[in-house]
Amino acid sequence: MPKDVITQRSVDYNQWYLDIVREADLAEVAEVVRGCIVVKAHGWAIWELMQRALDDRIKATGHSNVQFPLLIPKSFIMKEAEHVEGFAPEVAEVTRAGGEELAEPYIIRPTSETIIGYFYSKWIRSYRDLPLLYNQWANVMRWEMRTRPFLRTAEFWWQEGHTAHATEAEAEEETLRILHEVYADFVEQEMAVPVIRGLKTEKEKFPGALRSYCIEAMMQDGRALQAGTSHNLGQNFARAFDITFTDQNNTIQYAWTTSWGVSTRLIGALIMTHSDDEGLVLPPRLAPIQVVVVPIYKNDEERSAVMAAVNRMTAAWKGRLRFKVDDRDNYSPGYKFNEWELKGVPVRIEIGPKDVAKETVALARRDMPGKAGKSFVPQAGLTERIEALLAEMQTGLFQRALAFREAHTADVSTYDELKEQVERGFARAFWAGDTADEKRIQEETRATIRCIPLEQPGTVGRCIYTGRETDRQVIFARAY
Amino acid sequence: MPKDVITQRSVDYNQWYLDIVREADLAEVAEVVRGCIVVKAHGWAIWELMQRALDDRIKATGHSNVQFPLLIPKSFIMKEAEHVEGFAPEVAEVTRAGGEELAEPYIIRPTSETIIGYFYSKWIRSYRDLPLLYNQWANVMRWEMRTRPFLRTAEFWWQEGHTAHATEAEAEEETLRILHEVYADFVEQEMAVPVIRGLKTEKEKFPGALRSYCIEAMMQDGRALQAGTSHNLGQNFARAFDITFTDQNNTIQYAWTTSWGVSTRLIGALIMTHSDDEGLVLPPRLAPIQVVVVPIYKNDEERSAVMAAVNRMTAAWKGRLRFKVDDRDNYSPGYKFNEWELKGVPVRIEIGPKDVAKETVALARRDMPGKAGKSFVPQAGLTERIEALLAEMQTGLFQRALAFREAHTADVSTYDELKEQVERGFARAFWAGDTADEKRIQEETRATIRCIPLEQPGTVGRCIYTGRETDRQVIFARAY
Ligand SMILES: [Zn+2]
Ligand SMILES: [Zn+2]
Repeated sequence: MPKDVITQRSVDYNQWYLDIVREADLAEVAEVVRGCIVVKAHGWAIWELMQRALDDRIKATGHSNVQFPLLIPKSFIMKEAEHVEGFAPEVAEVTRAGGEELAEPYIIRPTSETIIGYFYSKWIRSYRDLPLLYNQWANVMRWEMRTRPFLRTAEFWWQEGHTAHATEAEAEEETLRILHEVYADFVEQEMAVPVIRGLKTEKEKFPGALRSYCIEAMMQDGRALQAGTSHNLGQNFARAFDITFTDQNNTIQYAWTTSWGVSTRLIGALIMTHSDDEGLVLPPRLAPIQVVVVPIYKNDEERSAVMAAVNRMTAAWKGRLRFKVDDRDNYSPGYKFNEWELKGVPVRIEIGPKDVAKETVALARRDMPGKAGKSFVPQAGLTERIEALLAEMQTGLFQRALAFREAHTADVSTYDELKEQVERGFARAFWAGDTADEKRIQEETRATIRCIPLEQPGTVGRCIYTGRETDRQVIFARAY
Repeated sequence: MPKDVITQRSVDYNQWYLDIVREADLAEVAEVVRGCIVVKAHGWAIWELMQRALDDRIKATGHSNVQFPLLIPKSFIMKEAEHVEGFAPEVAEVTRAGGEELAEPYIIRPTSETIIGYFYSKWIRSYRDLPLLYNQWANVMRWEMRTRPFLRTAEFWWQEGHTAHATEAEAEEETLRILHEVYADFVEQEMAVPVIRGLKTEKEKFPGALRSYCIEAMMQDGRALQAGTSHNLGQNFARAFDITFTDQNNTIQYAWTTSWGVSTRLIGALIMTHSDDEGLVLPPRLAPIQVVVVPIYKNDEERSAVMAAVNRMTAAWKGRLRFKVDDRDNYSPGYKFNEWELKGVPVRIEIGPKDVAKETVALARRDMPGKAGKSFVPQAGLTERIEALLAEMQTGLFQRALAFREAHTADVSTYDELKEQVERGFARAFWAGDTADEKRIQEETRATIRCIPLEQPGTVGRCIYTGRETDRQVIFARAY
């Protein structure tokens, strides 16, 4: 596994990404299933850690998990006008089953608003039945033309929350609670990826939503990646699926619904935020293996002395650190160092006969490759030292990503400045245009409005495109 | 929610089952998606506890989780002769996607041996690549004609393990390790359901397997339910998918593969083993809520005294017990008692003003409905008392199910005895017949050979059907 298996970012950023996905054993393009991937062991282990941390937050905010069917009657997606326009062109259809043609085809869910709307309509009778606060972890399918592992695949894995409320205010509160307490908190605290919280424009919102909120992250090539969306669906799906309830005054009302989701594309965001030319870099909280120990010896005598020290050392780690002792005999220490570096293990401990004698170990931190990140430290107090280091690395990765984003974000006040800035990062601009203006800008610059940040300057300026005065700023960027 | 919502077992066992599924909020028939169900919050919470306990065992035995595609090229299932015969008639087919007819249809996985075989063939080159020890948690689909929630549904949820080995002995060892250390251990320890471990006959084995092992449980109507299967696939799938490796002597060999799975049908087994005419009964280890506290008061003054006591009491429970304080104001205590009884919560604590004064609580255990299971106990030491009681209930449910199975199992030595015994439970019989004999018995009695138990008497007898002398005993039963 020579070093040059990873293309350098500066040479070819897209190839660098694909090299990391392959060499870190995260995923493989399925080939025989168009646009689909196999998520390999290391990739799925990261996803499981993400799921656990997200699920804890989803439950802490009062939601329960359920499971709705994979298949949806095709007629269902036709019921909400914007929704059908958004999803109908890319659905996969089941037309035969059990050896027979089906009278009505099913589609494989591209998202579940419609099938869930059908059941909510059955379940909700009175204001006493509200709110319904449900989530599901599921696979979904969208027949995408151009796919890339994690970032855009035909089948992907996600959670989708679907709630129903008695009032617009409650639905809006739910939508924002998910944005802040679940998504932004998870992505910043666990993934160490800073995000901008904002509202989507009409052009960019979810098909069928009243308002879509999102969190946007910056990748190392300056492009934006939408890391989560939370939609206030208003009464649109309630009207399409007849989700009504009798209120306290005995009047029949349409319910207010929300939906929100994050997916395995977050693994793509994780890779592209932190990794380097040596391979994957993982924030410690999402590292399936946080510490790898590589024992070094030349003969059986050395082996037993070294392994005795390793066993003493790691006995204290159980339940505190996720670790692995790499005692494979058929691979050299150099090979092992390289493999764990590619896979993004945050801390590597090397220990040989001299270290045993001196009661030290060599410690290498993944966030500082090469000599800068290597030190020799005493075995005494090693557990606490590693715990402190992992916490420091977690914060450090976040700070580094935040500094990068700030260095690649600029206020622009002319259209020419905007065109230039989106070549290298985010352009912040006053905006008073409409959907047609946005489309023209996208054609000319390949940049879109990522969001209208919730934090606004409170000042007034001239729209970058129309010249109209406005107090609204937006973020333009090219996006994944 | 009156008591008579649950049909009594003695009146109509099948309706009793459906009533429990509905009233305990476990699942709902999807109707608009043929043969599919919605798994509701309480049902999915039980499945999550099952998944966690199974996943821990799967990882402890050295396996990693991965994820293969939902869709499989239709031609793949044609490659293994027995496999196609077993699964082709019941697949759902995707023939259109992205608005176009597909050149080759995909099927939605009914099980993943074939697609995984394809990738194992790519991944395995040398004996150094073996063993591969992978598992996935996934939804699968089989277009079944007669469906019942959890027991048989078109879409269901499961884990499927798939491993590849260099030798037959290693594959056999893996197959049995899963049977004992993962499946039997989980079902007996966590589900409190006793099982018989055995080998399937040729007629009953998995399509494409060399040997299928299983665990069989007895339901309260005396019928058998297969609670898990572990297959030694021999070299059958390796030949069909060209899974070869170069051994230590540089010779090319076919790999030996295994597969094994348990599914959401285990929720059906759980219901039918322990529940009673009052509703669901859950073993404490799989109860999403182990203890429910129902505070009782008539006015605000009583409310604050009672709730203060509840808060003191439950402060000690965090991290030790899964509990819920049911302080809903719009429902009566009687309504709440009934609801939690239907949902199978193992322990109910009632506390009113008099209990506060006396520093006691009323405690009701779900495994003994009515007065027999109710007692008044001091608040002092309550946490430890509940923990001990939950452990006692867990063992007690297992012992009760085991005693039931033993009371409904009999040795039979004539075909007439067999016919009679399968009306009430398991019939143990010597067996030297063949597949044709088994088919005839099934037609005549609706019973099948559930398994050839791994524990054999070591004595000799005459085959119940052919009269031939044999040392092999089998279990006959009607099965779900
Ligand atoms: Zn730069
Ligand atoms: Zn009986």
